[in-house]
Amino acid sequence: MIANIILNNNYKIIFLILDGLGDIQNPPFSYQTPLEAAKKPEIDKLAVNSGILGRIIPVDIGITPGSGPGHLSLFGYDPVIYEIGRGVLEVLGLNMDLQDGDLAARANFCTLNNNIVTDRRAGRIATSETERLCNRITQEINEIEGIKVILKPGKSHRFAIIFRGEGLSDELTDADPHRENRPFVYAQPKTENAVFTSKIINNFIKKVTTLLKDEAIANGILLRGFSRKPDIPSFPSQYSLKALAIATYPMYRGIAKVLGMDVKEEPRDYHDMLRVLKENYQEYQFFFLHIKETDLAGEDGNFPDKVKTIELVDSIVPDIFNLNPHVIVITGDHSTPCPLKGHSWHPVPLLMITKTGERDGLTFHERNCSQGSIGTIYSKQLISLVLAHAFKLDKYGA
Amino acid sequence: MIANIILNNNYKIIFLILDGLGDIQNPPFSYQTPLEAAKKPEIDKLAVNSGILGRIIPVDIGITPGSGPGHLSLFGYDPVIYEIGRGVLEVLGLNMDLQDGDLAARANFCTLNNNIVTDRRAGRIATSETERLCNRITQEINEIEGIKVILKPGKSHRFAIIFRGEGLSDELTDADPHRENRPFVYAQPKTENAVFTSKIINNFIKKVTTLLKDEAIANGILLRGFSRKPDIPSFPSQYSLKALAIATYPMYRGIAKVLGMDVKEEPRDYHDMLRVLKENYQEYQFFFLHIKETDLAGEDGNFPDKVKTIELVDSIVPDIFNLNPHVIVITGDHSTPCPLKGHSWHPVPLLMITKTGERDGLTFHERNCSQGSIGTIYSKQLISLVLAHAFKLDKYGA
Repeated sequence: MIANIILNNNYKIIFLILDGLGDIQNPPFSYQTPLEAAKKPEIDKLAVNSGILGRIIPVDIGITPGSGPGHLSLFGYDPVIYEIGRGVLEVLGLNMDLQDGDLAARANFCTLNNNIVTDRRAGRIATSETERLCNRITQEINEIEGIKVILKPGKSHRFAIIFRGEGLSDELTDADPHRENRPFVYAQPKTENAVFTSKIINNFIKKVTTLLKDEAIANGILLRGFSRKPDIPSFPSQYSLKALAIATYPMYRGIAKVLGMDVKEEPRDYHDMLRVLKENYQEYQFFFLHIKETDLAGEDGNFPDKVKTIELVDSIVPDIFNLNPHVIVITGDHSTPCPLKGHSWHPVPLLMITKTGERDGLTFHERNCSQGSIGTIYSKQLISLVLAHAFKLDKYGA
Repeated sequence: MIANIILNNNYKIIFLILDGLGDIQNPPFSYQTPLEAAKKPEIDKLAVNSGILGRIIPVDIGITPGSGPGHLSLFGYDPVIYEIGRGVLEVLGLNMDLQDGDLAARANFCTLNNNIVTDRRAGRIATSETERLCNRITQEINEIEGIKVILKPGKSHRFAIIFRGEGLSDELTDADPHRENRPFVYAQPKTENAVFTSKIINNFIKKVTTLLKDEAIANGILLRGFSRKPDIPSFPSQYSLKALAIATYPMYRGIAKVLGMDVKEEPRDYHDMLRVLKENYQEYQFFFLHIKETDLAGEDGNFPDKVKTIELVDSIVPDIFNLNPHVIVITGDHSTPCPLKGHSWHPVPLLMITKTGERDGLTFHERNCSQGSIGTIYSKQLISLVLAHAFKLDKYGA
């Protein structure tokens, strides 16, 4: 609906995304959430003086989102319609250069015994072993029938693959039995369109298996999550916003690139993120700053680390505010409650700092957010509200 | 959407449904609702310590639901898409055995004068009279052209009919002028498919009218709400939950059966419901406990009785909690405010007792519920949230 009422101006919008921000009570450690327990005088001062609060639901009530749906919805995309494949996310997470037409896959080293997958993770071999094996494969096999094969080792037994060339399809089943002590399975084409691709991939797997037959443990590979760069409308052109992503973790720079945002640098830390923001402030209207450590602490069940990360972020907020952007949004892509040690379905606390808000006069944490004037909305609805506060939406109808 | 992310586990979910629970202020009797006025220390202790609150809207804002839509939505069905016909509900409410292919109808005895319906309720004849008349019909007319006819008397002038046999359709208009002092009307087929059925039904009505011509008051019958067992996806298979319904009233056991839940016994009272729950606790994952008396009190405008029912329910809650289910939901299928003496559109107070909630720290009543962390959601959205809290939903997307 908003496509026809987008207005151009140079007002700035900053999304400060604390990955996995939302949390729940943490007994017996604390009945407070990390956001409630953290000392964050700068954020709370802004929240009370010029903040409006609410909560966002990334996908739907009760649904726990992955990182893809979590971010897509933040930027206004319906995460049920648009999808970033698992292979693509893996490749982006390893900072590989994903191009149009590339086919991406997640991969494991595994243990094969007479074609039976006896260990899907090859005894969780060391990262250095995976590096050695990826090198060994790359030296012997770097293309199959004109299709280039690019490998990059990840952590432990994991790696990612890009197949690059003409005519590749992602309509394939996984080359992975998904359980142990089952026969290895090759990728099957789901459509006529994918027959060529399945031959390339299965041929690659056969060559690798032959090459690795002398390896003691990691003598096979499993490939899954075949996917291509999704066909998604560009964020900057949809909203008429020049957009810059500033993130220390490659996956989030990757997602931003997929959505057509610019990515200039790989900042070292929060202060370096601030430097990139300041240096590019005049040139862009939209800035996506991504903080990963809140999610990592949540995944580890580490309440004190999550608190500490929030307090660290608090220390850079005045510098952001002093740039005088029209709207600052502080929220998360999903919740990662420490007691659950993983992503969850809980609505995500949302703070919008704006000159044109109802001014709730509340500090920023989950309980206050559930009383905030924004209410509880779907993440994909957030962008319209933000554009409105930045005067980037014209009147609808006469 | 959740069909692809359902997980299996043996965690237990208990729905304690207080029919017509929601209420409004009751001046001059009390400015409190029955839920607010009731002394319910057990429920409130759980609500404060491990409860999250919210409100559910059964069908839509401002819409007053019948029992069918009220319960369908509680179990995750869109009540606008799925429907349980009036005839079916009547038959289930009288504890009749409704089979696939059966055609059900609600029926009244009425008074006819020269084919004019002068009293649609035959002077509200006594239940014993209806029993006598139903017996009289059953002895003379128990089948029409190979279609079996089964009658069961209800209260006052009301009874229910099942037509059983091949080729029956429910695409028929009512055999009821719906107003008094109008000519009797026969059932009309709405489609070609229902021509045979309309002949059977109208033939039955003619035979009954001939049979009853010597009756002083109840010398005719009106049939309406023709319906068949609806084609509804099974609750247990949709959510991968073995489900048991425990209800003292037949209609609610009937609705549960239509949804594919098991119904083992007809419990006598709340303590007997508890016994059935305990005896079957290991075998099932989902339990639907239905309490009718809150609705009856609401329909009667009997504030003290509604309070008393809630207090009685409170006394069985510790035994339920001590079974250690993962999630207990206490709510209603709709509101039945005492001042209105009937179902209403008001959102229904919702309490979820869970280990993974935000912990609202509030006692359970309408005003607190409107401040709860669940927010105000549609009843049909509740099941996803419950499944999430019972760890029965996988992550969505990578």
